[in-house]
Amino acid sequence: MASMIASAPVIDLNADLGEGFGRWTLTDDEALLSVVTSANVACGFHAGDPSIMRRVCELAAERGVRIGAQVSYRDLAGFGRRSMDVPPGELADEVAYQIGALEVFARAAGSRVSYVKPHGALYNRTVHDAGQAAAVVAGVRLAAGSGATGGLPVLGLPGSLLLAAAEEAGLAPVPEAFADRAYTPAGTLVPRGEPGAVLHDPDAVVARAVRMAAEGAATAADGSPVRVAARSLCLHGDTPGAAGLARRVREALGAAGIRVEAFA
Amino acid sequence: MASMIASAPVIDLNADLGEGFGRWTLTDDEALLSVVTSANVACGFHAGDPSIMRRVCELAAERGVRIGAQVSYRDLAGFGRRSMDVPPGELADEVAYQIGALEVFARAAGSRVSYVKPHGALYNRTVHDAGQAAAVVAGVRLAAGSGATGGLPVLGLPGSLLLAAAEEAGLAPVPEAFADRAYTPAGTLVPRGEPGAVLHDPDAVVARAVRMAAEGAATAADGSPVRVAARSLCLHGDTPGAAGLARRVREALGAAGIRVEAFA
Amino acid sequence: MASMIASAPVIDLNADLGEGFGRWTLTDDEALLSVVTSANVACGFHAGDPSIMRRVCELAAERGVRIGAQVSYRDLAGFGRRSMDVPPGELADEVAYQIGALEVFARAAGSRVSYVKPHGALYNRTVHDAGQAAAVVAGVRLAAGSGATGGLPVLGLPGSLLLAAAEEAGLAPVPEAFADRAYTPAGTLVPRGEPGAVLHDPDAVVARAVRMAAEGAATAADGSPVRVAARSLCLHGDTPGAAGLARRVREALGAAGIRVEAFA
Amino acid sequence: MASMIASAPVIDLNADLGEGFGRWTLTDDEALLSVVTSANVACGFHAGDPSIMRRVCELAAERGVRIGAQVSYRDLAGFGRRSMDVPPGELADEVAYQIGALEVFARAAGSRVSYVKPHGALYNRTVHDAGQAAAVVAGVRLAAGSGATGGLPVLGLPGSLLLAAAEEAGLAPVPEAFADRAYTPAGTLVPRGEPGAVLHDPDAVVARAVRMAAEGAATAADGSPVRVAARSLCLHGDTPGAAGLARRVREALGAAGIRVEAFA
Repeated sequence: MASMIASAPVIDLNADLGEGFGRWTLTDDEALLSVVTSANVACGFHAGDPSIMRRVCELAAERGVRIGAQVSYRDLAGFGRRSMDVPPGELADEVAYQIGALEVFARAAGSRVSYVKPHGALYNRTVHDAGQAAAVVAGVRLAAGSGATGGLPVLGLPGSLLLAAAEEAGLAPVPEAFADRAYTPAGTLVPRGEPGAVLHDPDAVVARAVRMAAEGAATAADGSPVRVAARSLCLHGDTPGAAGLARRVREALGAAGIRVEAFA
Repeated sequence: MASMIASAPVIDLNADLGEGFGRWTLTDDEALLSVVTSANVACGFHAGDPSIMRRVCELAAERGVRIGAQVSYRDLAGFGRRSMDVPPGELADEVAYQIGALEVFARAAGSRVSYVKPHGALYNRTVHDAGQAAAVVAGVRLAAGSGATGGLPVLGLPGSLLLAAAEEAGLAPVPEAFADRAYTPAGTLVPRGEPGAVLHDPDAVVARAVRMAAEGAATAADGSPVRVAARSLCLHGDTPGAAGLARRVREALGAAGIRVEAFA
Repeated sequence: MASMIASAPVIDLNADLGEGFGRWTLTDDEALLSVVTSANVACGFHAGDPSIMRRVCELAAERGVRIGAQVSYRDLAGFGRRSMDVPPGELADEVAYQIGALEVFARAAGSRVSYVKPHGALYNRTVHDAGQAAAVVAGVRLAAGSGATGGLPVLGLPGSLLLAAAEEAGLAPVPEAFADRAYTPAGTLVPRGEPGAVLHDPDAVVARAVRMAAEGAATAADGSPVRVAARSLCLHGDTPGAAGLARRVREALGAAGIRVEAFA
Repeated sequence: MASMIASAPVIDLNADLGEGFGRWTLTDDEALLSVVTSANVACGFHAGDPSIMRRVCELAAERGVRIGAQVSYRDLAGFGRRSMDVPPGELADEVAYQIGALEVFARAAGSRVSYVKPHGALYNRTVHDAGQAAAVVAGVRLAAGSGATGGLPVLGLPGSLLLAAAEEAGLAPVPEAFADRAYTPAGTLVPRGEPGAVLHDPDAVVARAVRMAAEGAATAADGSPVRVAARSLCLHGDTPGAAGLARRVREALGAAGIRVEAFA
C-alpha cells in the first residue's frame, strides 16, 4: 500500500453496460461510457443482444473505453442472478462462447475484448467455489486459442478463488472495490441482505471512492479501518441517478490527483 | 464447364453438423466428419450449444475438415426453419455474433472459421429476398473486423441473391448442389412439397453426385439435361443412413477420379 | 351507428400490460390498471414471466379489470414484432399454451381469462393472412377444451381476417380502435412508417377517443370523415406519459357521458 | 406393509414423456404410453413444446393414461438437470405456469392434469431443500385456484421434504420407487456417480419391480433387505430398449397378480 501511495495513485473505473435485451433497456450506456474507463459488456446470456453489443462496442471504442466480456450463466429470465450448477466443462465452453461473440463486435469497432468479468451469480459463486472459478478461467484460456499461453485479465473480488485461479493459470488478476458497499473488518463485502450493506448517501460514496483509490483503504461497517486493495472501482449503472453519481466519483478522483486509467 | 472438365475435376463435400442442443442430438457428427471436407457447424441460434460447438470443431480440426459457420435465425423452437422478418441491421448483428462465437472454438482447436452458410429458412429466404441477403453479407463483413476488406466466403445456391450480394461485397461466392434433390430444367430446386422433390434411391444419389462433380450437370425432373455448376456438394446428415450414403458418395467420387477437396 | 348513439354509448378501454421480463420492466402496470377496463396480459412468448403474470392478474382482479391473453409469436429477442412463418398447427398450439398458462394466474387471483388479443407481428399479420388468422382462432378453440363449442372472444382490428375467422368459428369478435393512430379514408390504419401515422398531441388524442366512442367515427388523414366502429379503444402504455394520457382519455369519456365498461 | 400385501397389491407405472423440443425427440412416447398408467409430461421448461404436449396428451387420453405435469427449472440448455437458486416465489409461479399450460392440452384431449412431479435437478433438490420443496408445493397450490383447498397430488421420493411439504399442505403425497436403481440400507437411492448405482440387467430390474410392488421391499446394495414403500414405479424412457424393458415389467407385474393402476 505504501508503494501504491508513493507512486502516482491510479484507478480504473468499471461499470456493467449493455444490459438491455431486445425491446428492454436498463443502463444509460451513453452517460456511463463518458465516465468509466472499462466497460463490462453483457454478452447475451443474462442480458445483451447482438445489436446492443455492437452499439456499446462502437460507443466504447469511440471514447477510448476498454471493452470487457461480462460473462454469465445462461439465464435471461433471472438476469444471471440465480446460481446454477453448470458442469465445469460446459461452463468453460459457455464463457468462451460469450467472449468470442463479443470479440467480433469489439474488432468491428476497431477495438478488442481486453478482460473478462463474471456477472451476478457467477461472480458471487466464483468467490468461494473452486470448481466454478476454475471453469471460468478455463473458458478464458480456451478463448485465447490453441497453443496460446495466458489469456485475458480477469476482473474480480480481491481474495476470491476466481482471482487466485486466474493467477495460477497465468492470467492477470485485477482486483476491484465497491465504493457503495459496506465492508467487514476482514475486507469482504457485507452481504446484500444485511442492514447497511449498500451505501445510499452520494457524498459518502464519493468520499469512499477517493479514499479507496488514494489509500487502498476504507472504514469497515464496525468503524475499524480496512485495507481495500483495488486496481478498479466498480460503479453501478442500473439505478436512477447512477450515471450522475458515477460522474461525481470521477470528478472527485481527478480533483484528488488520482489518475483514472484502465488497467494494462 | 469445358475448362472445369479439362482441369482435374474437384469438388468439396459439405454437411450440417453439430445440430444437437443440450440433451438432444441429431447428426452423427463423427461419422460425417470422416467423409466431408467442409463442416457447416450450427452456432447456437437454431441448434448447437457451446460444448457441441467445441467438440465438433475439435473433431473437424483433427480430420483436416474446414469449419464453416452455419448461421440461422434465432429460433431454437423451430430449428431455424421458420422465416422471420428480422430487421436487416439486427440480422447482420446476429450473423456476426454467431460467427464470432464459433471462431473461438475453431481457434481453440487450432483452426479457423473459413466460410459462412445460412441455415434453413434463412438459406431459403436469401435466395430471393435482397434485403435479408444483404443483411447476411453485412454480418459476414462485420465479422471481418474494422477496416477489413472482404471477409469469409459464402456458401449457397447458384443464382441466389445471397451469392450475388456476396460477390458484390467482395466475398467469394461458393455455389453448391444437392445430389438428393430434383432440379427444374431452369436449374433451380424442385420445392420440397412437390412429388419427387427428394431422391431416396441411394444408387441414384451416388450416380448423380458423380455426374454433378465430373460434368457440372444433372438430369432435370422432366428428363432434360440441366447445368449444375457447383464447387461443393451438400450431403444431408440428419436422416438414418445419412452417414452411410455420404461415405458411398465420397468413395464413388474417388473411384471416378474426382478430387474431393475443400474450396480455397 | 345510429342505434349505438341512441342507446347509452359504452366503450371498453384496453392496454398491453405485464410486458416486462425478469429484471426488465416496460409498462406502468399499476397506473394503467386504474384506468383500463381490459388488461391484455403478456403470456411469456414476447414478454411477461410467470411472476409478472401473477402480479398483473392480482392487480387486475383487485380493480375489477378483465384479464385477456395477449398471445404472441415465440420471440423474446424481437418482442414479438417480427413476423414468423409458424406452421398453423404449431401456432394454434402455442396460442393455447399461452392462454392456459395465463389462466392459472387469473384463477389464482379469483378471475378468469376472458378474451384473447394477438400481439405485435401476430396482430398485424392476422389482419390479412388467412392461415395465421385461422391458426389463432384454432388455438382459442383448443383452449376452450374438448367438446366445447365456442371459446373466448377475440379482440382485434375491424375488417381483419382474424375477426372474420373468429366470428365464423363462433367466437365473439370485438373490434377495437386506436385514438392515437391516423386512419385512411377506407378505415384502415395508416402504416407506422408513414408521416403522421401516430398522433402525438394529447388533446387531439383525447378528443378523438371521445368522438370514436360517442359517434363511432373519426377524421381520416385526408380530412374526410371515416366510420370507426369499435367496442374497445386501445391505449398504449409503453411510452413516457402513457399512463397520464390514458387517465385523461378515461376522464374525458366520463365527462362526455360515455360509459367505460368491459365488453361482455 | 402387511395390509398392503393383504389387500390385492396395486401399483402405478409412471414415465417421463414428451421430452423432445422442436426438431428434437428423445422418448418413444407411443410405446411407453401403451405400458404406463401415468405420464409425466414435460411442460416446456426443460423439454416439451406446445405441439409435443398436445400430442402426448391426446395419446395419453386415448389410452386412458393419467396426465401429470413434469415441472422443471427453466433450463432447456441443461435439460433441467442443473440445480438453480430460483427464489421461492418465482419458482412457485414457474411451477403454476407449467401446470396451467399443460392443463389446456389435457382438457383439449378430454382429460385433466391429475398430478405433479418435479423433473431432474428440481426433483433431486426438493428431496432435501425445504425452501425449494415448499415453493413447488406453493406452485401446485397456486394452480388450484383462488379459495381452493388442497390441489393436485405430488409424486416424489419417499422421505423427501417435497412429499412432507405436500402432505402438510393438504396435497396427497405419492411415493415412487425405481426398479433400476440401487438402494442404500436406509432406503435412499445410491447416488448416480457411485458404482452399481444403476442396474443394467433387465431380468434383475423386472424381478425387482415385482418384489417392490408385491412386498414393498427390495435388496439394498449391501445385500440387506430394505423397505421400499411405493404407490408408483418410475420407468425410464430415454435409453435404447427402455420401452421394451417397460413392457416386460408390466407383463411380469400382471403375471404376479399385481394390479397395474394409476393412483387415485
